[in-house]
Amino acid sequence: MDVDAVVAGLSLAEKASLCRGSGFWHTQAIERAGIPRVMVTDGPHGLRKQPGDADHVGLSGSVPATCFPTASALASSFDTDLLYRVGEALGRECRAEQVGVLLGPGVNIKRSPLCGRNFEYFSEDPLVAGVLAAAAVRGVQSQGVGTSLKHFAANNQETDRLRVSADVDERTLREIYLPAFERVVTEAQPWTVMCSYNKINGTYASQHHWLLTEVLRDEWGFEGMVVSDWGAVADRVAALAAGLDLEMPPNLQTSDAQIIEAVQSGALDEAVLDTAVTRVLNLVDRTTTDKGDPLDLEAHHALARAAARDCLVLLRNDDTILPLTPEPGSTLAVIGEFARTPRYQGAGSSQVNPTKVETALDELTRAAEGVTVAFAAGFGLGTTADDESLAQEAVELASRAHTVVAFLGLPASDESEGFDRDHLDLPASQTALVVRLVAANPRLVVVLANGSAIRLDGWEHHAKAVLETWLGGQAAGGAIADVLLGTANPSGRLAETLPLRLEDNPSYLNFPGDSGHVRYGEGVFVGYRGYDALAREVSYPFGHGLSYTTFEYADLVVEQTGSHAAGDLAISVKCNVTNTGQRAGKEVVQLYVGAPDASVARPIRELKSFAKVDLAPGETTQVELMLGSRDLSYWSELHHRWVLEAGRFDLAVGASSRDLRLTTSLDVDTPPVAAPLDDSSSLQEWLADPIGGPLLLASIGASDAGTPNGVLGDAELLQVIGNFPLRRLCAFPGMVVDNKTLDGLLEQLGAQR
Amino acid sequence: MDVDAVVAGLSLAEKASLCRGSGFWHTQAIERAGIPRVMVTDGPHGLRKQPGDADHVGLSGSVPATCFPTASALASSFDTDLLYRVGEALGRECRAEQVGVLLGPGVNIKRSPLCGRNFEYFSEDPLVAGVLAAAAVRGVQSQGVGTSLKHFAANNQETDRLRVSADVDERTLREIYLPAFERVVTEAQPWTVMCSYNKINGTYASQHHWLLTEVLRDEWGFEGMVVSDWGAVADRVAALAAGLDLEMPPNLQTSDAQIIEAVQSGALDEAVLDTAVTRVLNLVDRTTTDKGDPLDLEAHHALARAAARDCLVLLRNDDTILPLTPEPGSTLAVIGEFARTPRYQGAGSSQVNPTKVETALDELTRAAEGVTVAFAAGFGLGTTADDESLAQEAVELASRAHTVVAFLGLPASDESEGFDRDHLDLPASQTALVVRLVAANPRLVVVLANGSAIRLDGWEHHAKAVLETWLGGQAAGGAIADVLLGTANPSGRLAETLPLRLEDNPSYLNFPGDSGHVRYGEGVFVGYRGYDALAREVSYPFGHGLSYTTFEYADLVVEQTGSHAAGDLAISVKCNVTNTGQRAGKEVVQLYVGAPDASVARPIRELKSFAKVDLAPGETTQVELMLGSRDLSYWSELHHRWVLEAGRFDLAVGASSRDLRLTTSLDVDTPPVAAPLDDSSSLQEWLADPIGGPLLLASIGASDAGTPNGVLGDAELLQVIGNFPLRRLCAFPGMVVDNKTLDGLLEQLGAQR
Repeated sequence: MDVDAVVAGLSLAEKASLCRGSGFWHTQAIERAGIPRVMVTDGPHGLRKQPGDADHVGLSGSVPATCFPTASALASSFDTDLLYRVGEALGRECRAEQVGVLLGPGVNIKRSPLCGRNFEYFSEDPLVAGVLAAAAVRGVQSQGVGTSLKHFAANNQETDRLRVSADVDERTLREIYLPAFERVVTEAQPWTVMCSYNKINGTYASQHHWLLTEVLRDEWGFEGMVVSDWGAVADRVAALAAGLDLEMPPNLQTSDAQIIEAVQSGALDEAVLDTAVTRVLNLVDRTTTDKGDPLDLEAHHALARAAARDCLVLLRNDDTILPLTPEPGSTLAVIGEFARTPRYQGAGSSQVNPTKVETALDELTRAAEGVTVAFAAGFGLGTTADDESLAQEAVELASRAHTVVAFLGLPASDESEGFDRDHLDLPASQTALVVRLVAANPRLVVVLANGSAIRLDGWEHHAKAVLETWLGGQAAGGAIADVLLGTANPSGRLAETLPLRLEDNPSYLNFPGDSGHVRYGEGVFVGYRGYDALAREVSYPFGHGLSYTTFEYADLVVEQTGSHAAGDLAISVKCNVTNTGQRAGKEVVQLYVGAPDASVARPIRELKSFAKVDLAPGETTQVELMLGSRDLSYWSELHHRWVLEAGRFDLAVGASSRDLRLTTSLDVDTPPVAAPLDDSSSLQEWLADPIGGPLLLASIGASDAGTPNGVLGDAELLQVIGNFPLRRLCAFPGMVVDNKTLDGLLEQLGAQR
Repeated sequence: MDVDAVVAGLSLAEKASLCRGSGFWHTQAIERAGIPRVMVTDGPHGLRKQPGDADHVGLSGSVPATCFPTASALASSFDTDLLYRVGEALGRECRAEQVGVLLGPGVNIKRSPLCGRNFEYFSEDPLVAGVLAAAAVRGVQSQGVGTSLKHFAANNQETDRLRVSADVDERTLREIYLPAFERVVTEAQPWTVMCSYNKINGTYASQHHWLLTEVLRDEWGFEGMVVSDWGAVADRVAALAAGLDLEMPPNLQTSDAQIIEAVQSGALDEAVLDTAVTRVLNLVDRTTTDKGDPLDLEAHHALARAAARDCLVLLRNDDTILPLTPEPGSTLAVIGEFARTPRYQGAGSSQVNPTKVETALDELTRAAEGVTVAFAAGFGLGTTADDESLAQEAVELASRAHTVVAFLGLPASDESEGFDRDHLDLPASQTALVVRLVAANPRLVVVLANGSAIRLDGWEHHAKAVLETWLGGQAAGGAIADVLLGTANPSGRLAETLPLRLEDNPSYLNFPGDSGHVRYGEGVFVGYRGYDALAREVSYPFGHGLSYTTFEYADLVVEQTGSHAAGDLAISVKCNVTNTGQRAGKEVVQLYVGAPDASVARPIRELKSFAKVDLAPGETTQVELMLGSRDLSYWSELHHRWVLEAGRFDLAVGASSRDLRLTTSLDVDTPPVAAPLDDSSSLQEWLADPIGGPLLLASIGASDAGTPNGVLGDAELLQVIGNFPLRRLCAFPGMVVDNKTLDGLLEQLGAQR
């Protein structure tokens, strides 16, 4: 399509109509102009394509599709290659269904474990979210299918999600809430970006010019189309002017008329409309109608299982109770309704109609040879009327089993798009059951299914092993069986901290806000950045996860080349990692950086690079992780840009954020980022300045320094007035300088600079 | 003086000159017009009058004056009568020195224990600060001497104090940072209010029209003069327009000219200048030149001692080691340089040249009859070179003493106006000494001198008793001896929490900010409001303090009369308090209120009333504490006013914020404060509304409710879209309503209201 020519030939009304869908899931077609429609469909961990032309009320009834692990699970893999392959499979399924754009991935940061949509998001860390989502986007788009990076931006809760203003300073946006979007845009160019429902500092994301145009396009170079989240447009014309190209679903009764009126009245430059239409048509143009090769859904199911395997996080494994080594003829007690009725995805727009669902009970029964696998529900998923009899039955089974595997988790009704949790707890029926099970049989393994962090403290010490499976997709049951039985070696790592208590979360006092506002009061201290700064103990730290083998780290080598000033600063951090155990296994090598000399409050350590390596027993590999200027910089509110300050940086390579195996520090030498000295600079700042200090001393030295009553000789007085801007002290008779002297100083300063 | 007539007869230049001082400590006189000058002088816990006409560089060399306990100590008395009497004495000393205005009290809230000026402030709680400061102001002003309520407002740190912007939402200002000012203004009408140095949400306090005029005068009815903190004026004309009447010290080179130019150019209405001049002259007019009765400085010293006695907080007293009961002939080891060289005030503009100073060592030696009082310094106050030999000497002394009293505290260099601390710790030389002393003699009593909270955790368990004396003024030594020996019974209560660790403080992640901003990220959760919300253990909670006797609480009776709507809601909370011990003693009865049903995040409990009662052994008294509408309300950001919500309120009467002796709850019935239903109200809000709900159901009932695919019958879908504003759902074809239906609903709603 010659998009420019097509746009030039469209009427104003036609152009307005292209800036909204024709219905729930399709862009507007204009037959006359040869413009077909494109279908978009919910994601992100599978396809939710509602069949038929008519728009369809409700969330269920979509065509079957492979349900891959949700983002919270996939993130735990820390495996970009895996994300790419899952993305490819999603792309193939979209193409087969003639879906042009899959509405995902979601890279919002898990500010609070309570956020109802956390299962759709990757991490509390922007690097993890960005790197993994970029891989997923590349995978989907490799199949000629678009993605929609969402929800842009600062959409970190469901409570009042369509109205709440995320009140957050720019540094926090730049360092925490935007970098995952930035990385995906700059590294993977998603075909579309989806704006979020909420306001940011009082302005709807859908109308946020700074966000949708200045940052997204002008700074990051985004080339695709911006689509609204479904229903996110409050003012169609304001949104268009801000950079929101496509409104979904369409306000058929109003939007076209508003756009036409705005153009005709001159309130909206038609060029803005043309630009939006061009972007919509570029999307239409790049969408294929070729369905691609026939789908191999069995292969996709196998991929879903392989993916889930690499997402499981083994939190504890006392006495190496895992992998299970069942005695022949013994009974393996599988307890918990979730073993039979698995939770493998969350509710809301991401809910997939799976092609099939494996249960852990079936898979264990199939795979555990020579062992009797016996099941008891233990608790119900709905009403709790029968819980006592279910629990008794489970305890009885546990007492005669060799080993007990209890499948616990959050009820489906706890986790959904649309609302947030208000606590972190498992149902009391489950935690009470744990106590009774362990009394009956101490060989207790707990398998957890939950989309976001839960509280473990208070009950998990009863279990010898705890395996966190998140919401692992339709093949999670098989993956769990593989790991429990040792067919697979767990290699997932926590992409979110598991705190001891909800109150320990740094956002606790400010989540989810009220009265239309949520204050991001913890600033950049989100997730482990906050737990570390607050010196809070946690149940399990960010980055944690055990393996059936062990790894040793050695031989840390840091090499710095280039310079910040020249734009080619490169820091290579190398170490050797050895599999010191008896099994092949994968290790996630994590590089954390701290800036103890920083002039602003910075986290003690931040993940700046990671790599997942697969090692045979005894094998050693050298891992190299790279850092650049940006990885050492902070966003300066004073300078409105990234600033790298000279000084010491702490480097730590570890197996988790609190299991730092190799540490060193690095001195970075770069010119100081001076706040320019002026008359609002303080007396202390003047005295400390290499040029201003001597000038000041010379000008007042004769009358002040060294005299018995001199200001500069009075340490106590200096403490009290040292942070006065010099101009203010001009009002203090005889104390340092007067206005005329200061004017002279500023003149001399200018001359010497 | 006929002020209006005088103003009318002044030239523009004369009027401009009256809006600034003539020098550091005096207002401008205009002899021609019969306008004398008035002297103002630093406070607040004593007079810092610099003698002579010439302005004087430096902080020392003021005329001798009684140094009363600093505000952090006085606040611990929880005794309004005491504050009034101290105020009277301060007023008498001012009058004798012909000082027209004493520059205090300071009622800023102790947001962080690190604030360098906390010793000059009262509390982390606005009720305590406001009630006690109001009493002090009434006391001073009863002597015909003015006060200056400071630092208005949100000046809660010294770091970058002249430039930093306190970024704080209005609810937090209204509930935490302003109420102490509000109470003093409305209850005691201080002659002047002093604006602070800092900015509030980007605007200098000195130029903050909302703060200085709309809130202070229009809402609270302040009738006095607003003076700048010394050097707080950045833009003289903007400050005048905002309501800043008097600039101190004067920018003699520039201010008059700027004002004159602004009036002449029309940038400033001359009426604004006239108003400011009128306020300055009203102050001049009410100032007396009568020196009053001759001062009885001995009586003031005795008052300082009596005051200090009631400020001491007995934190712990294991085995009732206190009061000391020395065996005749035994040795009482007094250890610690502070026993000989006391810390009794802080540094900076509040520093008083005392009329005399009592030391605890002298006073104990004098008062402990039949006992040998032996002293060892234990540690030095300056360099630590001799610390080891000093410590050895102290340990040796302890080992042969019957009882050891160790005087510990913060070095003077740790606490001053002008900078903040960056940790809470005592010097290591002191905490190490505690460990060695207790090894030598377990009968160890620690007496602390510090202006703001310190960390006790890690060492205090070695001591059987810990007595917190704050900075207790020139007679603290005698007061300490009185309490240690049992001549006086301690009755101080903590007006600030002593946390376990600095990181536990709710402001920790946001103190003191950087890059020109400090985010008040903890919102209203300051002090115990935060420790409670975060469920943090503390060393000693707000309100805590032991006595040598014991008290029992009984017979809680709550009576509610009047109504919020009528403006006469009154809740009487009565209980009986009995002295169940063997000594006369004073108890601080504290009433805390919580609002568990609130629609916004509110503290678990807040102090809303208190009373100090003095009871003989066996005596019972009924204490009545009153609550009104405001005490149950929160500041609504939505309604821009105080809002009382119907529902349950938790009432607790206790001996501290965590020693709640009597609890009950109260139902308050008042019409709901409805957010008006409109098209931005959510589907859930419509369904819940008593009028809107039925209207909505009636309009869509036929087509939706009960039908198989209806939205309202789909609980899962409702969860996902329930928080959509109804207007947004109009874009969702067939889902709830369309624009026309909604317009009709709004019309019907208007008709039924």
